[in-house]
Parts: sequence; structure tokens; C-alpha cells
Amino acid sequence: MQTTEIAILNEADLLGLAIAGLRALGVEQAAAEGAARILVLADMMRIHTHGTARVLSYGERLEIGGIDPKAEFEVTSPAPAVRQIDGRNGLGPAIGARALDEAMEAARACGVGIAFVRGSNHFGPIAPYAYLAAQQGFATMIASNATTTIAPSGGREARLGNNPLGFGYPNPGGDPIILDMAMSVVARAKIRAAQKAGQPIPESWATDAEGLPTTDPSAALKGFLQPVGGYKGYGLSLAVDLMTGLLSGAAYLTHVKSWVDEPEAAQNLGHVFLLIDTKILMPTETLAEKMTDFGDILHSTPRAQADVPILLPGEREMRALNDARSNGIALEAQLVADLRKLAG
Amino acid sequence: MQTTEIAILNEADLLGLAIAGLRALGVEQAAAEGAARILVLADMMRIHTHGTARVLSYGERLEIGGIDPKAEFEVTSPAPAVRQIDGRNGLGPAIGARALDEAMEAARACGVGIAFVRGSNHFGPIAPYAYLAAQQGFATMIASNATTTIAPSGGREARLGNNPLGFGYPNPGGDPIILDMAMSVVARAKIRAAQKAGQPIPESWATDAEGLPTTDPSAALKGFLQPVGGYKGYGLSLAVDLMTGLLSGAAYLTHVKSWVDEPEAAQNLGHVFLLIDTKILMPTETLAEKMTDFGDILHSTPRAQADVPILLPGEREMRALNDARSNGIALEAQLVADLRKLAG
Repeated sequence: MQTTEIAILNEADLLGLAIAGLRALGVEQAAAEGAARILVLADMMRIHTHGTARVLSYGERLEIGGIDPKAEFEVTSPAPAVRQIDGRNGLGPAIGARALDEAMEAARACGVGIAFVRGSNHFGPIAPYAYLAAQQGFATMIASNATTTIAPSGGREARLGNNPLGFGYPNPGGDPIILDMAMSVVARAKIRAAQKAGQPIPESWATDAEGLPTTDPSAALKGFLQPVGGYKGYGLSLAVDLMTGLLSGAAYLTHVKSWVDEPEAAQNLGHVFLLIDTKILMPTETLAEKMTDFGDILHSTPRAQADVPILLPGEREMRALNDARSNGIALEAQLVADLRKLAG
Repeated sequence: MQTTEIAILNEADLLGLAIAGLRALGVEQAAAEGAARILVLADMMRIHTHGTARVLSYGERLEIGGIDPKAEFEVTSPAPAVRQIDGRNGLGPAIGARALDEAMEAARACGVGIAFVRGSNHFGPIAPYAYLAAQQGFATMIASNATTTIAPSGGREARLGNNPLGFGYPNPGGDPIILDMAMSVVARAKIRAAQKAGQPIPESWATDAEGLPTTDPSAALKGFLQPVGGYKGYGLSLAVDLMTGLLSGAAYLTHVKSWVDEPEAAQNLGHVFLLIDTKILMPTETLAEKMTDFGDILHSTPRAQADVPILLPGEREMRALNDARSNGIALEAQLVADLRKLAG
């Protein structure tokens, strides 16, 4: 058993460290603050794969020109409730944070606001954006396209990304409900784990390189992830790409450059941030009552297995966030050391 | 082998017949026209379960007071891009058609528009609404909640509906791309077919009454439909209910009355119609080019099986619609006779 040394930081310290790290990589102050806010929230929600560890991997891409630290985002408003944002290949989460602000402004003015983003790259997890919006009373639909990993139903070549889609709902009396899902039944990591354990995988997880369902994890790793519900998830992934990629004026489908294979190329990913101002729909107290009732109805469902609780989407992440606020954020000590070294 | 007698009608004749039938049931002219438009398009797309046959089943509900034929819809606009519509338990597709018009007006003014509907009931399939919007250049997200049939992940009691969610994208150079999906892996009809054929069902389709996955169709019919991707589909269904039910001020979760068990009660279903005016995002020619490219990339994917083509969402329905325009709408002769009798 390996032990990993852990460092505990509070929110303000980790935020300062992430900002300093990004500044050291040449990122402008406002962009560094926006991006750090998202990555630190990801760590607090224990989505560490999309947390401040990314500062270091962004660093590699910034160095080889795959991301432009000095990018000046271009924002236009072709209609009162709409913003179009060209991230000009700046830092994904910085572009995302700016787009969230723009969509909030539009939603405050019109009741609903939408920001279409092009010229971006990996913008982190959706949950932190949805959380920030929910804290100000906005319901959200947030989505992004991604490098191709999924074959269309009936196909044997990846043409679609595992495009994440999220919905967030403010809960004035408690934690917001936040769904943040990718379109595949499982992540590739789960297939690698099965391979390592010498276990077969369910037929619904992946196809082999020929596009046919397989229970062999090794064949699956050479093939494609299966989307949830087969052709339904294929359709959903495609709908997200049309919204976030095509309508945003970003790349879509196979036009998206691979983060892994072409780290020096601009990905031109697209995102969408749709915000709804719930305060115009009903009084805050009414929303609080209804959200409590909604959660109670689901939590009180008789359980299929006594020891497996019924959870709401994002409940685990929100508990982690609340715990991090009280007890600090637990990170690998090596990551903190690397960030400190970078921040100088 | 049973043979079913078929009658072929053109669009205008079926529309006239459906309107006359609804008028005979006491529905006001404008509501009858709106509803008939949706139901006829459903028939043209060969979604006959949600087509003009519904005129007859609505008839039963109208007679026992489960739907109010004279309902006057109440429309308010709490913000420039938002409409709130109380259908006052009128005819679902008539309420839906009105909400679509309202959302279009808001989207024309603000670039994006959203209509939240309460006091409604079954509004038909999503595809016809998405089609009508796409023909005028609007991208759509349209959704509804529904009577509970799905248990939350880990639960053994239905607390969520098989809430349909749709996305539509205009294609100025061809057919729009329209996704119209419910949240379960399969419909109950598929499980009944397996039972009839004495075949087991895949574990992913349904649970037994105790909430545990089953391959026995008879046990499955006493249990619950499984949502696509397990907890992902559960989350998606819940997100749709929050948007369409809770935020609309309609019923949600177990507060929704069952169409089957309580036909005389107002369901108070909720819907959402989100429309985006694509004309403000890019010139129509650019959209046409990109949509053609998008379809080409998917259609040209090498096939897993030579005889199984790769389709876009809604492609089958759009082909049926085009065919109906050229060759008429094929319906069961008995249905047409019943509609004629009703229309008088």
C-alpha cells in the first residue's frame, strides 16, 4: 500500500497559490483570477482531475503555444439576451469564467441569457460554474464539446466528443442541485481498471475497434466508449455539439483538434452557458420551499438496498465543498509543492 | 396475419378533420387549430401513437372534465425574454402550440426566448414543435415532465417521470436535426413484446418491484423502467423535472397526477420551450454550409455493419414527413372513420 502525503490548505491560500502560478505562466491577472476560482472550486468538490493540478498541465501547453496566456477575449452582443465570445485560444477556465459573467449580465437584463463561446479549450468541470451561478439565483444549462472519442451509432470511427452537459438549480435553503455528466456510460479509466483486474466489462460500456459491443477491456480500449442509452446518448452528444460547437462558430465533430495528439494546436472548442434568473419566476421563499420538498420526495424513496442511500445529482460534491469550507482542502503535498515552486 | 385497412389523406384534409373533431368536442377554434397542427405533424412523422388518434382519447378526458375545452390560457412576461403560461388545464398540444408562439416572439426580440408552462397535460411529441421552430430558423430545447414511472437510482418506488427532452436545429439547406428522447432505455412496449415472445430482456432495461435489475420481462413490468446510463439518466430526468415542473410552477415528481389512474383530475404538467434565433448568430448561408458539413461527417463514418446505415436524430421522421407531403398520410381507415364520425 502506497501512502500519499497530504497537505491541507484553506480556500484563500489555494486561490492565491493558483493565481500566482498562472501569473508566473504569463496569464493576465483577470484571466488568472477567473480560472483559479473554477479550479479551486473543483478541488473543493474533490474533482481533483479538473482542479489546480491543471495549472501545471496548462503550463506545458502555454509553453508550446497551445494556449495563448495573453489572449484578449472578444465579446459581442448580437441581441439583448445573447453574447458571442471568442476566447482567442486563451485559458479555457478563464474564458469560461468570463462567459459565465456575460451570461449573468444578459440574464439579469432579459430573464434568460446565453453565451456562445468559440476559440476555447478544456474549461474544467461544469459543476463550479453551475455552483457560482446558483449562488446568485440562476438556473443553468452549461455544456461543451470535446475531442472525438465516441463513434456514431452504427459507426466504427470516433466522430463525436464525450461532450459534457450540466444543469444547475439554485436552492436558497440548502445546497444547489447540480448535474454534471459526460455522455459515455463510463470513463475510460473504469475500463483500464477492469483490464488491470483481469475482469470482463458489461457489453454496454464500449465497442471494439470495429464498432461492435465487447466485454473484453483490452479490445474496448482500442475501440470506442458507448454513449448512455446507445443511440439516445449518441443523439444527446450530437445535440450538445450542435449547440456548443456549430452554433458558437467553434470547431465541431472531427474539426476539433486533439488535446493529446496536437498539444501545440488551438483546439477551438465551443461552450454554451444558458442562465435563467429564477428570481423573476417566483419569490425566493417559494423556491426554497419547493426545492426542499423536491429533495425530500427523492431522499425519502424506499431503498432497493438498505445500505445504499439515494442521492441527488451533485450531492456528494456539495458535501465535499461544505467540508472543505470547514476543514480545509486536502491535496497531494507534491502538487502543493509544485504549485509553490511555480508561483515562486 | 392481420391486415389493416389503410386510408390515405393529404395534410390539409387531415388538418381539417382534426380541427373539426376537436371543435365537435367543444374546443375553441384557435386551440383546435394549434393542437391539430401538432397532431397532424406527428402522424406525418409516423409517430402515430401521438397523432390524430389522440383526438379521440382527448375526447374521453374532455367529457369527464379531465381537460377543460374552454380554458383561456394566461400569459405573462416577467422579463423581456421570458413568458409564463398557465394552460388552465386546457388541451396539452393547444397549450404547447401557444407556448411555442410566445417563445418565438420572445426570441425574436431578445435572441433567445423561453416559455415556462404550467397547468398542462400531455402535449404530444416534441418533434413537431421543434420542426415548426426550425422552419423559422430557431434552435430549440423543449421538454416536459410526466407521470411517475422511474425510480431514483437506488430506490424502489417511482418518483420521476420518463420526462421527454428534445433539441432541434434548423438546416436551411435540408432537413432539420431533431432529437426527441425519453429518459428510459426502452419503452414499456418493448418489455411487453419480450414477455409475449418469451424472451429475457437485457439487465439495463428495467428493475423488478424491489428496484433490482432483472432480465425477466414479467418482473420488469411490475417494476420500473431504467433510465439511460443508470444514475446519469436519473439525473437528467430529474433536471428536466426541475426545469419544466418546479421552475414552471407546475406539479413535479409525485405531485403529478396520473393520466391513467386519475383521468378526471387536472395533471398540472409543466413544459419548457427554449428558442434561440440562429439568424443573429451567423448568416443563413453559413448555417446551411455548416449543417451540411455536420451531417456529411456523421453519414460518412465507416459502418460497423454494412447494412446498418448511420442516421442523424430525427432523420427517419423527417423522411416520413417529406414522403407524406409527396404521397399523402397513411392512416388506419378505422381512425379516419372515427374522426369523420366525430367531426359530423
